[in-house]
Amino acid sequence: MKFQEDGDGLTEAGGFFCAGVSADVRGKRDGRLDLGVIHSNRPCSAAGVFTTNDVKAAPVNYCMDLLARQELARAIVVNSGNANACTGGQGLRDAHMMATETARQMDLDADEVLVCSTGRIGEKLPMSRITAGIKAASEDLSEGVEGGRSFLRAILTSDTRTKSCSAEVDATDGSYRVAGAAKGAGMIEPNMATMLAFLTTDAEVKPSLLRQLLKEAVAETFNKITVDGDMSTNDTVLLLANGFSRVKIASSDTAAVDSFREALVRVCRHLAEKIVGDGERITKVVDLKVEGAADDSAAERVARAIANSLLVKTSWYGNDPNWGRLVDAAGYARVGLDFDKIDLYYDDEPALLQGEPQTRNRTKWQSVVERERFSICLNLNQGKGSCQLLSTDLTAGYVDFNKSEAPGASSSSSDD
Amino acid sequence: MKFQEDGDGLTEAGGFFCAGVSADVRGKRDGRLDLGVIHSNRPCSAAGVFTTNDVKAAPVNYCMDLLARQELARAIVVNSGNANACTGGQGLRDAHMMATETARQMDLDADEVLVCSTGRIGEKLPMSRITAGIKAASEDLSEGVEGGRSFLRAILTSDTRTKSCSAEVDATDGSYRVAGAAKGAGMIEPNMATMLAFLTTDAEVKPSLLRQLLKEAVAETFNKITVDGDMSTNDTVLLLANGFSRVKIASSDTAAVDSFREALVRVCRHLAEKIVGDGERITKVVDLKVEGAADDSAAERVARAIANSLLVKTSWYGNDPNWGRLVDAAGYARVGLDFDKIDLYYDDEPALLQGEPQTRNRTKWQSVVERERFSICLNLNQGKGSCQLLSTDLTAGYVDFNKSEAPGASSSSSDD
Repeated sequence: MKFQEDGDGLTEAGGFFCAGVSADVRGKRDGRLDLGVIHSNRPCSAAGVFTTNDVKAAPVNYCMDLLARQELARAIVVNSGNANACTGGQGLRDAHMMATETARQMDLDADEVLVCSTGRIGEKLPMSRITAGIKAASEDLSEGVEGGRSFLRAILTSDTRTKSCSAEVDATDGSYRVAGAAKGAGMIEPNMATMLAFLTTDAEVKPSLLRQLLKEAVAETFNKITVDGDMSTNDTVLLLANGFSRVKIASSDTAAVDSFREALVRVCRHLAEKIVGDGERITKVVDLKVEGAADDSAAERVARAIANSLLVKTSWYGNDPNWGRLVDAAGYARVGLDFDKIDLYYDDEPALLQGEPQTRNRTKWQSVVERERFSICLNLNQGKGSCQLLSTDLTAGYVDFNKSEAPGASSSSSDD
Repeated sequence: MKFQEDGDGLTEAGGFFCAGVSADVRGKRDGRLDLGVIHSNRPCSAAGVFTTNDVKAAPVNYCMDLLARQELARAIVVNSGNANACTGGQGLRDAHMMATETARQMDLDADEVLVCSTGRIGEKLPMSRITAGIKAASEDLSEGVEGGRSFLRAILTSDTRTKSCSAEVDATDGSYRVAGAAKGAGMIEPNMATMLAFLTTDAEVKPSLLRQLLKEAVAETFNKITVDGDMSTNDTVLLLANGFSRVKIASSDTAAVDSFREALVRVCRHLAEKIVGDGERITKVVDLKVEGAADDSAAERVARAIANSLLVKTSWYGNDPNWGRLVDAAGYARVGLDFDKIDLYYDDEPALLQGEPQTRNRTKWQSVVERERFSICLNLNQGKGSCQLLSTDLTAGYVDFNKSEAPGASSSSSDD
């Protein structure tokens, strides 16, 4: 497998065309790219994973309904700047209209178009500008770097960087590619929050297998990152497989499936890491591993309690290992841990062994926390359950950044 | 019932003596009061409620063991500045020695003394200074304002104010008092965190009834406050009833029990509110009510999701009602809420009715959030479950305050 960071985006996979244009969704006339389309020159198997929030944005409900009826698609339309969430019946009609307009411009059926939105909650979409944007984007489609990279920019909200990568896999009957693009930034947790990710592949994969592989890949990548513990109304991961490469991934061919899974997970993991690293005003990325729990679910409860503890996250921000706060958070996950059994490492430096503070090497594990990226391993020594999460620190900058919307805009809400 | 804020503290109840001295627990020689004792001139029924964190501090384990054997006590000794948590076998021996020393100075049995600590986690207690402090405090006991108020100061950590109140109840055979003292500040949630509360009453109440009434009172007061979602290793509420007033609360006398319960809840609620209002670097107190949930437990899940959402708390800090973030948080509690049914009020101003934003009175509900204290009521319109929580905003000051310990002290941990 050849892996590439950045690159052209989703057009790295053959037969996919992209565009990103300015539709002025935010009404600021600043020319910011905010509407993107993905188009495949042939029918695709389609799979999606969506937020489990009770409050789902209109496009999420729209895509879930569509994929429940048929797991096929040819195009995706996405806007940033407005989440089309908490917008009632009008919101659903607007999502439908986005699909219809995109289909009309691309000469497809409306049922072949998936729809995503991200941005402010509680405001109606500016449909005339959206419609004009869809027309412009459809006319602008390209299979090269221009379309690919414009799309990457069009989906961003408070992100500071575009996020994309691709993997190329050599198979017995040729080669194929898996490409990915994502946006993230705030509200990242516990199950993919204000996160959109788009995946394209020119391998041929049947819908049922595609769905299964996407679900597994998301579970171990996008669902294992956390910035602030909030989960959004709009989280969506979509995967299109168009078979352009003529390489077929048959579910009976274990080696082929394994290779595809590996490429998919690699792409998803890279995007997930980029999302965490671009979390709002963070200064540190922490790779947190909990081992030796009674089972995986207990390990995950402990890991999430630590990764979402304000006191733990603020201590990381202050370059303070503060194992006491970490152990306290682990304790309130209430999995029945025994402090006198636990081992705790900062990178490879032991800070606690069987509950005993390792004061002799204190300067070593203290200095680990000053790094921009470090790992923490907590072993409960109770069983074989484990969980790995990527988390971040919590900064005063995060609070200032999120405390207020633009003046006069505070009637609704935003993750924008 | 006559209710009094502040006052003399725990000595408001007859037959109780208090003291607070400087034992220099922190080793800073700054004369700060950090060791307090409570003494009753006769045997008391005793009841306690403790943290449910897996990681319990030594004094918590000590008190739980003691009260499991007998529900009687005569004295309580408390230090601030060191939590005696994560301190292994030595920690337990130190807690026991605190009881033994206090008993020796007061001419009691060690089994009659309860022990509490609050402060830094992971450091051994400076026992020689603690022992000297116990001697000084025991010699300093008084039943007036001096002892009462010194005790209030001695238990504080990052609190900015002492917290106490008392209630006086007229019964058919005389009158009795319920007095309370507390410390709080950081780590307040979900079940009383880094919170110590002490309650004294000169009513006569049997241990089994006392235990039951304390449990109920804590559930609806101290367990319904949240500052940062963290729960500490040391949370403790202790109640002593010494019968000095000669008023007896018999479990068969419903009216008497109700009056006592009312006074106890009133005192606990006042202390709980004071703890929230003194949360670390907060600027707002928010009274959050969730109604119309399928049941109380669903309502509580929704309320806690909202009250602990970083994005919701930062928006309050920014004077931004941001109902979208609030609804998003309610949605990820996943109780099956339906956005199109919900009503949302800021104080009495409707912001959403049946999911429809109330834009006409927008300036009214926007301005509510600028208040230092306001209420939010979310009605899910699904059933009769409800929950009320007191919460706070999240400020950049909180993050800065918690990001770092004193230089060179970062090997262990603190809520101090």
